[in-house]
Amino acid sequence: MINFQTSPEQYKHWKLSFEGSLAKLSMNVTEDETLADGYKLKLNSYDLGVDIELADAIQRIRFEHPEVRAVVLTSLKPRIFCAGANIYMLGTSSHAFKVNFCKFTNETRCAIEDDSRHSGRRYIAALNGTASGGGYELAIACDEIYLVDDGNSAVSLPEVPLLGVLPGTGGLTRLVDKRKVRRDRADVFSTLAEGLKGKRAKEWGLIDDTFPTSKFQEAIDNRVAQIVCADFPSPSRERGQGRGPGGAKPSPLIPLPEGGEESGIKLNPLEFESTDDSRDYKYVSLKFHRDKRYADLGVRAPDDRPTTADEILKLGDAYWPLRAYRELDDALLHLRVNEPEIGLVCIRTEGNMVNVLAVDKALTANRNNWLIREIIWMMGRVLRRLDVTAKSFFAIVEPGSCFAGNLLELLLASDRSYMLNNPDETVEIALSELNTGAFPMSNGLMRLESRFLAEPKKAYEAFAHDGPFDTEAAEVAGLITFAPDDLDWEDEIRLAIEERTSLSPDALTGMEASLRFAGPETMDTKIYGRLTAWQNWIFQRPNAVGPNGALTNYGKPTQAQFDYKRT
Amino acid sequence: MINFQTSPEQYKHWKLSFEGSLAKLSMNVTEDETLADGYKLKLNSYDLGVDIELADAIQRIRFEHPEVRAVVLTSLKPRIFCAGANIYMLGTSSHAFKVNFCKFTNETRCAIEDDSRHSGRRYIAALNGTASGGGYELAIACDEIYLVDDGNSAVSLPEVPLLGVLPGTGGLTRLVDKRKVRRDRADVFSTLAEGLKGKRAKEWGLIDDTFPTSKFQEAIDNRVAQIVCADFPSPSRERGQGRGPGGAKPSPLIPLPEGGEESGIKLNPLEFESTDDSRDYKYVSLKFHRDKRYADLGVRAPDDRPTTADEILKLGDAYWPLRAYRELDDALLHLRVNEPEIGLVCIRTEGNMVNVLAVDKALTANRNNWLIREIIWMMGRVLRRLDVTAKSFFAIVEPGSCFAGNLLELLLASDRSYMLNNPDETVEIALSELNTGAFPMSNGLMRLESRFLAEPKKAYEAFAHDGPFDTEAAEVAGLITFAPDDLDWEDEIRLAIEERTSLSPDALTGMEASLRFAGPETMDTKIYGRLTAWQNWIFQRPNAVGPNGALTNYGKPTQAQFDYKRT
Repeated sequence: MINFQTSPEQYKHWKLSFEGSLAKLSMNVTEDETLADGYKLKLNSYDLGVDIELADAIQRIRFEHPEVRAVVLTSLKPRIFCAGANIYMLGTSSHAFKVNFCKFTNETRCAIEDDSRHSGRRYIAALNGTASGGGYELAIACDEIYLVDDGNSAVSLPEVPLLGVLPGTGGLTRLVDKRKVRRDRADVFSTLAEGLKGKRAKEWGLIDDTFPTSKFQEAIDNRVAQIVCADFPSPSRERGQGRGPGGAKPSPLIPLPEGGEESGIKLNPLEFESTDDSRDYKYVSLKFHRDKRYADLGVRAPDDRPTTADEILKLGDAYWPLRAYRELDDALLHLRVNEPEIGLVCIRTEGNMVNVLAVDKALTANRNNWLIREIIWMMGRVLRRLDVTAKSFFAIVEPGSCFAGNLLELLLASDRSYMLNNPDETVEIALSELNTGAFPMSNGLMRLESRFLAEPKKAYEAFAHDGPFDTEAAEVAGLITFAPDDLDWEDEIRLAIEERTSLSPDALTGMEASLRFAGPETMDTKIYGRLTAWQNWIFQRPNAVGPNGALTNYGKPTQAQFDYKRT
Repeated sequence: MINFQTSPEQYKHWKLSFEGSLAKLSMNVTEDETLADGYKLKLNSYDLGVDIELADAIQRIRFEHPEVRAVVLTSLKPRIFCAGANIYMLGTSSHAFKVNFCKFTNETRCAIEDDSRHSGRRYIAALNGTASGGGYELAIACDEIYLVDDGNSAVSLPEVPLLGVLPGTGGLTRLVDKRKVRRDRADVFSTLAEGLKGKRAKEWGLIDDTFPTSKFQEAIDNRVAQIVCADFPSPSRERGQGRGPGGAKPSPLIPLPEGGEESGIKLNPLEFESTDDSRDYKYVSLKFHRDKRYADLGVRAPDDRPTTADEILKLGDAYWPLRAYRELDDALLHLRVNEPEIGLVCIRTEGNMVNVLAVDKALTANRNNWLIREIIWMMGRVLRRLDVTAKSFFAIVEPGSCFAGNLLELLLASDRSYMLNNPDETVEIALSELNTGAFPMSNGLMRLESRFLAEPKKAYEAFAHDGPFDTEAAEVAGLITFAPDDLDWEDEIRLAIEERTSLSPDALTGMEASLRFAGPETMDTKIYGRLTAWQNWIFQRPNAVGPNGALTNYGKPTQAQFDYKRT
């Protein structure tokens, strides 16, 4: 079982340190501390365990160290920044694991860009040695890239020439869409195993600058000083960022929390109890029906209603939306990686809808507070994690449920929703201010907007509606898929579950990836749609993973043998 | 060997008839007239041969019958419009053939939309029986869909529930992006093997209207009469088309050619001579170096320079751009399907650059003439066919070559370009007015715009440049990739070819599909990128094509057995 929770004291591969408003993330991968057997993490190569620490560090910087203005990623190993995803790990992993590994590493890189875009922190890749493959893909997720000019160090994407797979952690997309490298140069670079060094790399826009070894540290320090002291324009931003969720330009720096670094809040470990067929956090619960290949995912409403920023700061990570959505995030990752046969997740909510709406009201009222903003952005990232999870989601709305405001997004993110139609019981859903754009999908649309592409006015009518929607009103408003009555309810849900879980899991994955993202595309959706889909295709091809494939034969005395038919 | 040329006299599966400004395309598939053995084309199901006829018919309507304002697609078989791609054909085809089949059928459907968007012709799917799978995908490529209400006929996308694959001929994308069907309803519809009938199908936006059997023909006739008499608004257009190339809204109807239907020009068969290692058309030639897995694709400049619309109309299909680009189209299709081991195409041009630029001048000067517009749009479609061809393209610029104006697009569409740098010889490239937007890529950008995303002013500087570019000027302008000098030229080209053809063909396909389409995405790029990539992934999965897969077991007494792990 893979555990996605960690903390800096437990890190085996990264050193996270702070100096005033600078955070330094130094990669120093421990070769033998792998998630599985059969490979060693040489040359700062990584497996999922390394990336789980990186994702944790980025989240912690945002919540625990809001005073940070610049994050420097660098390496503690000589002459190598990072060699990318470990090839032997990829070569020995199942197809499904490779796909989930790439999805998570992609989400981590998008989380770096989410931080840069929203919180205005600058991420600097200080490449004190070669960055190849996923190493360069990590750099290209940062705002600025500086490469040491030591006659040896290079940036490279050697996946195509060496491994017969793609730089699929956003590399190809970011090359032409974020760095806007000319496509013929991107073609040359992506087929050049040895990559490019300082001068040429800079000329082609692959890095922002290069400095000789003797001046490298000084140059990085100077750049950090510039950022920390003022909001200087930077080379990478001038090249133009890809559109992110919301299509928004990077926000200006938000006000520093008062009182300096003490103002951060601590993210404590999430506690949960688990049995063979359940996993219960404080607000989130999973119940596995493995014989039927589905799970129930429950979310409980909060019990209290803090309203002021002070009350919320005092609650810290115990504050409902922070706690509940961190739990939801962990539950989704657990479902993805540790429960592969669960194909369908039925989302149910429970509790006092008024309290959920009070949360949204408090978040909206205090949205200029740094912590509240971080919480809202975090909720948005968790919801986007759900959007790209390769499971079907059905929202089940029953008496006692509380799909309101932020929790209504769970329903809107689901592939379908079923709402009981029984005039004798209270069954309601409701909107809040947060449904009007606080949680953009990866394509930049809010979920209601995406739902009503054909009739945009229906989104406005839903916003304008006064109070909660009962089942009939929800159906008329177009907010739900089906509204079975009391007599049919149980049968209909049971049949829907049985039918869904009988279908080809692969066809469902491809179908959902197509239907969930109508409308515009952004760099993020291109990474999860186009690039990932091609990479997944290649990850099954004999030319990569067959007995004579390039990935299989990497590092062996035997050479890859290709079937040269072009497909 | 598959032949992509045909003509109405040879059609085995379609009847193309004309009544004034109405064209009627009636599907009547001949079961036994298949492209390969092992399946029968029952119930108007189709294989590549059926679609080659459809593509031909659409092209001919545009050139031979410009008086047509409305095209009705219907079926001559009782109770069935079209059952989609033949499942036994798919089940017995190689992976590569399935992929190429889907690409071509997608291009045919995009060609319908291209005609509707540009020439203002309305395509009406008159579903006088059930349209399932690819049958409904054909309907959804039309502007308007009418379904008979006979208590039995339905529209459906049964690929996911019955076959474990996707409605990959644009179906899923057009459902949510063109028809803007609500995503939860699209989810339900796409998992419902039996589909939906008239009333519900209309309510969900899957069709535009439904009529009882007794009134169906009359309703279609009335609608056609409306279209033919005036430019009435229509239901489907109100729902909003996906953005097409250029992001353009549909053009208004263009002026009818004078003199009625006699004004169309005849598209005669393309003649070519072929040997084992060559295929020579009048202006286009292919030379296969199969042992080295590459081909030379040559295009010759015209010898004459007609300038007026009258001269051009008189030349008809002998006019250079029409002839040369039809030949190019046929050559690309031949390379795709009949030369799978050719991984790289080196594009070379030959002839008088002045004559090529004179063509562009004549096209620009006469662009309000219906034939000239059709020729320009056809050239754009051929260039887009190149953009999505799964081969690498290198443009080779040597003395005597004529990469100018429309032929410069071939260089800009290539993955790389090599231009000889030899001061003693004339080696030049040049722009024309047609490079400024006449040939949009699928993503709506012109190729120069896409090249200079990071520095848009370079595109304007290139346009503003006076006269042709010699090699050094072309390099400074950023128009070419490499400019080797005379001493290195042969070695460099040879090495580049050797290196390229040594790489994994699958990785190259995925890489090129990612790098060629920087910038915005449209419905078309979503179909070729996201949807197609997922479908190709599924087309390799054991759950579809393994011995127990759904596609393999369709129609057999055995049932599909799935590995239910979600990926």
